[in-house]
Amino acid sequence: MSLTFYFAPMSTASITEAVLAELGTPCERVQLSIEAGDTRKPEFLKINPNGRVPAIVHDGTSIWESSAITMYLGETFGIDAGLYPALGPKRGEAMKWIAWSNVSLAEAGSRLSSSLPAGSPGGAQPNAKEWDPAGQGNAGMAEKARRDLAGCLGVLDGGLAGKSFLLGEYSLADTHLCGIVGWLGMMHVDMQPFANVTGWMQRCGQRPVFARMMAG
Amino acid sequence: MSLTFYFAPMSTASITEAVLAELGTPCERVQLSIEAGDTRKPEFLKINPNGRVPAIVHDGTSIWESSAITMYLGETFGIDAGLYPALGPKRGEAMKWIAWSNVSLAEAGSRLSSSLPAGSPGGAQPNAKEWDPAGQGNAGMAEKARRDLAGCLGVLDGGLAGKSFLLGEYSLADTHLCGIVGWLGMMHVDMQPFANVTGWMQRCGQRPVFARMMAG
Repeated sequence: MSLTFYFAPMSTASITEAVLAELGTPCERVQLSIEAGDTRKPEFLKINPNGRVPAIVHDGTSIWESSAITMYLGETFGIDAGLYPALGPKRGEAMKWIAWSNVSLAEAGSRLSSSLPAGSPGGAQPNAKEWDPAGQGNAGMAEKARRDLAGCLGVLDGGLAGKSFLLGEYSLADTHLCGIVGWLGMMHVDMQPFANVTGWMQRCGQRPVFARMMAG
Repeated sequence: MSLTFYFAPMSTASITEAVLAELGTPCERVQLSIEAGDTRKPEFLKINPNGRVPAIVHDGTSIWESSAITMYLGETFGIDAGLYPALGPKRGEAMKWIAWSNVSLAEAGSRLSSSLPAGSPGGAQPNAKEWDPAGQGNAGMAEKARRDLAGCLGVLDGGLAGKSFLLGEYSLADTHLCGIVGWLGMMHVDMQPFANVTGWMQRCGQRPVFARMMAG
């Protein structure tokens, strides 16, 4: 078995980093610099033609998109580890939260990030899909993004009602979504109205993986 | 086994419709009207708190997000049917294309849709995530969306080089992406530069499922 993980600091690859740390799966790590243009170089575009991290190569096959990577690592290495559901409807629940977090929650977050003034905490990174110099400091765009984020956080809050974690027990769905919600927190998105989300974030933060990441 | 499919005509649910038709999985069908507000009614919000179609309920568990639904139906019903890879790296390839198509391709398509003038073919539906009356007719937003779409179609074109279908043989990854690219075609997105994509669309169009959908 060979597994290679391509990442850059302060990027979406941090989610995959946390997933791999939870699983304890050994892998070769390749650090790229977005600023130095590593993710746009021909040799990396052969691995991910989108020129983005994270990407993994498992036994010669390249897999990208952080949501696909989390689900793939989950079904491949996570079932025996008790971190991902076996085939069945509960697996479907994990998949819906992970897919949704990238399509809706992170998408609205990207719009907020790219509309914040340059230099703001959590403001646009050149790796952000939506990064667009014209959008920077666009207050209307930021306002719409904040509204959409509040809607998404309401959905997540409802999904956590009466539960410690998204599927009951902690799973890679929590690892994945906690990574995204943590990034929203860096942009000072207001979490106050969402008590289930803030309680869940505290519980996730007690996982050694996140405690180590926060410290580092 | 019980499977219920919630859909609305002319929505992202058409992708799930095609996936279910390929699989031939029997299900109860519940048609909703977005215009009449069915997807925002309390009874449907219990199934999908995002108020969107498609959604499925499998043995009592609700699953939403079209990409999660395609992958879930694929791994549950598609392997024996020869339409979805068994566990392993090839499955990961299916997942990366399906996840990518919603996060990148459909996201740029939504931005184009919501920036087209009202009444344009393929223009914004109230169900579109990005629907924003303020965006309608915004030429700069449309231009950026078209640029991003060309980038995505270039990635897809590269992924299809030397292959009949995304994974070699036809799979639900093709069903899913063909549904999205067909929608882009309705918005007159220029496919001319992407010969691998146009050839693949023709091959997908020969599947009885798509031939029936085009006719209907």
